[in-house]
Amino acid sequence: MDNNTYVIIMAGGIGSRFWPFSRTNFPKQFHDVLGIGESMLQMTMKRFRDICPVENVFVVTNKDYEGLVKEQLPQLSDNQILLEPVGRNTAPCIAYASYKIAQLNPNANLVVSPADHVVLKEEAFTRVVTEGLKAASQSDVLITLGITPSRPDTGYGYIQFIDDDSSPIKKVKTFTEKPNLELAKMFLDSGDFVWNSGIFIWNVKSILSAFRQHLPEISEIFEDSSAAYNNPQEQNFITNAYSQCRNVSIDYGIMEKVDNVFVVLSDIGWSDLGTWNSLYTIGEKNEEGNVIDGDTILYDTKNCIIKTPKERLVVVQGLDDYIVAEYDNVLMICKKSEEQKVKEFMSDAKAKKGAGYI
Amino acid sequence: MDNNTYVIIMAGGIGSRFWPFSRTNFPKQFHDVLGIGESMLQMTMKRFRDICPVENVFVVTNKDYEGLVKEQLPQLSDNQILLEPVGRNTAPCIAYASYKIAQLNPNANLVVSPADHVVLKEEAFTRVVTEGLKAASQSDVLITLGITPSRPDTGYGYIQFIDDDSSPIKKVKTFTEKPNLELAKMFLDSGDFVWNSGIFIWNVKSILSAFRQHLPEISEIFEDSSAAYNNPQEQNFITNAYSQCRNVSIDYGIMEKVDNVFVVLSDIGWSDLGTWNSLYTIGEKNEEGNVIDGDTILYDTKNCIIKTPKERLVVVQGLDDYIVAEYDNVLMICKKSEEQKVKEFMSDAKAKKGAGYI
Repeated sequence: MDNNTYVIIMAGGIGSRFWPFSRTNFPKQFHDVLGIGESMLQMTMKRFRDICPVENVFVVTNKDYEGLVKEQLPQLSDNQILLEPVGRNTAPCIAYASYKIAQLNPNANLVVSPADHVVLKEEAFTRVVTEGLKAASQSDVLITLGITPSRPDTGYGYIQFIDDDSSPIKKVKTFTEKPNLELAKMFLDSGDFVWNSGIFIWNVKSILSAFRQHLPEISEIFEDSSAAYNNPQEQNFITNAYSQCRNVSIDYGIMEKVDNVFVVLSDIGWSDLGTWNSLYTIGEKNEEGNVIDGDTILYDTKNCIIKTPKERLVVVQGLDDYIVAEYDNVLMICKKSEEQKVKEFMSDAKAKKGAGYI
Repeated sequence: MDNNTYVIIMAGGIGSRFWPFSRTNFPKQFHDVLGIGESMLQMTMKRFRDICPVENVFVVTNKDYEGLVKEQLPQLSDNQILLEPVGRNTAPCIAYASYKIAQLNPNANLVVSPADHVVLKEEAFTRVVTEGLKAASQSDVLITLGITPSRPDTGYGYIQFIDDDSSPIKKVKTFTEKPNLELAKMFLDSGDFVWNSGIFIWNVKSILSAFRQHLPEISEIFEDSSAAYNNPQEQNFITNAYSQCRNVSIDYGIMEKVDNVFVVLSDIGWSDLGTWNSLYTIGEKNEEGNVIDGDTILYDTKNCIIKTPKERLVVVQGLDDYIVAEYDNVLMICKKSEEQKVKEFMSDAKAKKGAGYI
């Protein structure tokens, strides 16, 4: 465990593809999505326990979720909870946390992780992150964890790497965001593509240098007054900073543009749990292929994912390949194969019922 | 409106085929099943407003439902609410109410009606009941309302009548309880069968005479001490009486055995609303053939019946011919064609979760 290692957990998202379970006022990362007694955020925090001291973990979230973060991670001090006044995608989020940490430790090596991903192989995760941190501390590289694809998933970004030595850290050749199925199959067959996990490792100097070169309008906003970090003025400074930021992702703004990007090949049991189908994929199935988190009695029902409140008895007869999800004031029944329609459902629910339903 | 006319509303059943909507502690007759702002019991009460004075209506129910009846029918005096300590089917229920009313008015003409049936044509109902009452007041006949069948329903009892004159009141030839589909089709085609509605009309002397002849062990229990009715001793007397009664229906015990049974041919928009499919049959369908009582947004969904709490938004995609029903702590999703499994569901729910779930 290295005191120069810092972790940035990005916990400001909405997880809208998990509606009606993930909601604006209680997004996915705060839920016990796997039904194991811990939220995604708590699991993410725990994942770093052997990687850096708890006081080096910083959580970036929306100001609306301050209470949820404090409740779920009481071990964090207020200075470790970074509150965005508004979501502006990953680049501003990472810039904010990086400038703040750079002021605390100019030699910091950073791991950046979403709060709502699943990593089933925790020891392997610790190992690849440690490898990545070693490389990042020794040279000016931007590293992403690359996941060996197990299926031609069209929902992920793919990274082609150059396989010219036996090192587990490979130079990146191309990024391809969400390919069509044909392309995804070719990527899978070729063997030199991995999924972009969105978990990053770099030295703070490397990422800030990349910001200055490729997203100068962002770095100027956050660099402007670095004396503002880690003191009572920080929140005011940040409120003003975000009002000037455009929405831009770290992938689009930096990773796809620089030539010092590497992947660590990672077999860590990863899923971004982005959709109901991804929860189904990693979930434990019963004999009929049902993934169940709820109090159910099932008849002639198979290949379903059922996630309902513990206090509700759910009796299902004759469903095959459906999602049955209830949370708060919404019940959704939808074919698994039609889960991309969830965004349409949300939009219609908001139009009919108001913002409390999304 | 005739002061000699009395109505007995039987409101002690459970309506278990409507689970999870109909429940032991809140059965179907107390629900606003049609979603129109009135319970089945209240609609039944209202149906008799032009037939007899309100003080001549007597409701027989289980003692557990006393509060529900008083709440829903505050116009009734305590003496008009008859409390059974335990359900013993229709014969003891009718015997109790008939002996009690006979003591108040030995010339009473009675209409006996379940509390949980639907009659869509109220004027026609008033007309046929009035016809029946006229016949019952003039001769010793037991009359049941016979419904012209609209489909070969295998869930109903069928009555064959003798069609030898133009009177709408016909002598009964045979009773057939729940025929198979082939037989039901033959009955439908023959034109001389009607459904047994279970709504009866007779003079109190006629029914008590039939009890004495065909169910003497029941009539002896209730006749034993007629001085016990309509006074403070009644409830104790009844508690004791029911402890001696066997379970027997009026159809099996009397109607199928006597030779003075008649039907009034009745085109009254009747349904016993016994099952989810019968609610679907009479329900108002949208363009896609869905019957909806709830707050729904539907996609690619047709021929379904959806009955869910108003406070829940229900989003359904890709269901055809299903029941989606939520009430209290139970959600049920079931193919319409498999609705006969509801009793199995109830039994399993009770075994798994306890009596609070049925």
